[in-house]
Amino acid sequence: MSKVAEGNAIIGQSGGPTAVINQSLVGVVEGLKGFKPIKRILGMRHGVDGLIKGLPTIDLTEVPQAHLEKVAKTPSAALGSSRAKPTEADCVKIFEQIRKNDIRYFFYIGGNDSSDTCRIVHEMSQRAGYDLRCLHVPKTVDNDLMYNDHTPGYGSAARYVAMAFMADDRDNFSLPGIKINVIMGRNAGFLTAASALARHHEDCGPHLIYLPEVPFEIDRFVEEVKGVIGKLNRCQIAVSEGVKDKDGTEIGAKLIQGAQTDAHGNVQLSGSGALGDMLANLIKERIKSPSGKPPRVRADTLGYMQRCWPEPSPVDAAEARGVGCKAAQEAMSGTTDGSIAIIRKSNHPYRVEKHVVRLMDVAAKTRHMPAEFISGTHDVSHDFIDYCKPLVGELPQMERL
Amino acid sequence: MSKVAEGNAIIGQSGGPTAVINQSLVGVVEGLKGFKPIKRILGMRHGVDGLIKGLPTIDLTEVPQAHLEKVAKTPSAALGSSRAKPTEADCVKIFEQIRKNDIRYFFYIGGNDSSDTCRIVHEMSQRAGYDLRCLHVPKTVDNDLMYNDHTPGYGSAARYVAMAFMADDRDNFSLPGIKINVIMGRNAGFLTAASALARHHEDCGPHLIYLPEVPFEIDRFVEEVKGVIGKLNRCQIAVSEGVKDKDGTEIGAKLIQGAQTDAHGNVQLSGSGALGDMLANLIKERIKSPSGKPPRVRADTLGYMQRCWPEPSPVDAAEARGVGCKAAQEAMSGTTDGSIAIIRKSNHPYRVEKHVVRLMDVAAKTRHMPAEFISGTHDVSHDFIDYCKPLVGELPQMERL
Repeated sequence: MSKVAEGNAIIGQSGGPTAVINQSLVGVVEGLKGFKPIKRILGMRHGVDGLIKGLPTIDLTEVPQAHLEKVAKTPSAALGSSRAKPTEADCVKIFEQIRKNDIRYFFYIGGNDSSDTCRIVHEMSQRAGYDLRCLHVPKTVDNDLMYNDHTPGYGSAARYVAMAFMADDRDNFSLPGIKINVIMGRNAGFLTAASALARHHEDCGPHLIYLPEVPFEIDRFVEEVKGVIGKLNRCQIAVSEGVKDKDGTEIGAKLIQGAQTDAHGNVQLSGSGALGDMLANLIKERIKSPSGKPPRVRADTLGYMQRCWPEPSPVDAAEARGVGCKAAQEAMSGTTDGSIAIIRKSNHPYRVEKHVVRLMDVAAKTRHMPAEFISGTHDVSHDFIDYCKPLVGELPQMERL
Repeated sequence: MSKVAEGNAIIGQSGGPTAVINQSLVGVVEGLKGFKPIKRILGMRHGVDGLIKGLPTIDLTEVPQAHLEKVAKTPSAALGSSRAKPTEADCVKIFEQIRKNDIRYFFYIGGNDSSDTCRIVHEMSQRAGYDLRCLHVPKTVDNDLMYNDHTPGYGSAARYVAMAFMADDRDNFSLPGIKINVIMGRNAGFLTAASALARHHEDCGPHLIYLPEVPFEIDRFVEEVKGVIGKLNRCQIAVSEGVKDKDGTEIGAKLIQGAQTDAHGNVQLSGSGALGDMLANLIKERIKSPSGKPPRVRADTLGYMQRCWPEPSPVDAAEARGVGCKAAQEAMSGTTDGSIAIIRKSNHPYRVEKHVVRLMDVAAKTRHMPAEFISGTHDVSHDFIDYCKPLVGELPQMERL
């Protein structure tokens, strides 16, 4: 299998898009260019969905570099993405299309589900004795891939979250009250934790950070908010959309279960403002200001801007390009299958290497915030700040009078 | 009253903060510096609230220019802001503090309520025969001040909205579905309208734009969404938080009235995700995809980032500084009272002048989107695009394959 196979390469993008997922796409194309055994470089439309449905591919072979550079800077998947987890029957169709299109190099940019798709496709090719190199290119704002120090897409999303909290903290200072910001990441708290980078002064928010890794207790939450209000007369709170109680039940679902549903009988948490609104209502009910009136409480759900805001972290953009390029080079130099992982070699100065890890080690597994990144019930550690800071690029400075 | 009075100047910030309200603060300070009759330049804490409560002022006279420049670049009111509308008794207290602090120059940065406060304070000084110059410095992301071509703060908020829609449109292309984004501006649609600047290609979103100036009909809304879905298989929608039916009832309140309330019996629209979530649920109920399943529908409420995102429009930042400086110069050159207004002199090239208008013409009035900026039931006109484009600065380019 280490002999170089002649044929075509195909690239797909999968899962929730990021601000830099097209950097990885362009990285793969760049890495493959000028490599003789590869005849055409093709793009799947909407990931393996396009192959399953037999949609025509997009020929990337002749796209001028200047055009590719503009695509690289555009957020979200330029080829289209897919949320589908292929069934066994789907995989048969995918493999048919691979043979039909004379594909010998298969690149899939995505999270842990995508690396699992990559693994399945590779196993099918092996069973069929068909020479196919399958490389997974990491991408996820959740930062939850095993064996990765961090994943492309995370740094830009973390940058957005940190900037949002910095600016919102000043807003909360201007008009004091309780402000809840709900952050993406149902299972892993890395993105919620990045809010801590916003702190630039001892009384700055976020004053409380709630991660999905730490059981969330409603009574304790109310007491912690009261504590901050008593000290600062304001409170800025970072809450992961995935906070859970000690039994693992999502708080959002729990708060709404105990309540009546909305006009249409629906309970929705993701892509909606429900969790933030429920927590805001809870606080209004249980915390009174000295005047006896409910305090000023507002909730924002940071939403899709976290994953697509068009001003990415420069280091994240460069690394996303790099992992794409590395995957191409690995395939060309004989690696039959694997996932590219970013490994940190040093933090001062910040330096990383890109390694190949086994697909089965990454596939369908979730990495959580390690214990040393968490501090108490509502904060992150200095270790986390040290870890996250180099990933987001330079942040704006907030100055006071 | 045109004789130059010796004494102190005081500056306050009021209402919802913006990304550039501190530019105006620094503009006033800059404009006053070196003007002999002014002994001290003071800042009110939290607007007139600080005067009413007798809070100590902040002395800005000796703050180094380098420090002020950093403050100018920081979003939200560095002096603190206030939402309070002073009562008559409050105004007596304000005037007492003005006399006590030997204030002869009063600058108030804010929206139409703030210009009304300015007007009342000026009238009190006249009745008392106390020489006080009262200048209102415009600020509002809503862009709803009379006699102003546009207001400082709007351009930066409009920039955020346009960038959010550009990026989110690519996200919606990647994973097709129906996406609702709810935008600030309860009475005026200028900020919602700015979403149209995101369009860079004929099939780009926002595909539907709903302004508070155009009566919103739920049945027509559902049909219009169906129409776009039928054509593009996706739909990105801009909705003002203040959309109203033909009787002027807010749609948010209406949708929730007909429904059961949440766990805590509260109905909240502003600073919450309720309107977006209600519209999303409505669509899920009434639009089926060809498979019979409800389509993928998501709602984001863009929230406070609109008014505080720390990367402002450069032209907005410069104009915000300019109106502050102009207010100082007017006060020094004998103007006893008035509001600074930005008047557009030419659009190609973009050129504005800053004039003084009467406080009573701006005070407590709301400017709406003029008819020529609106197109049909769900769009803005080319005139609006021409109007808005110069205010937001250069936007990122989105490129496709």
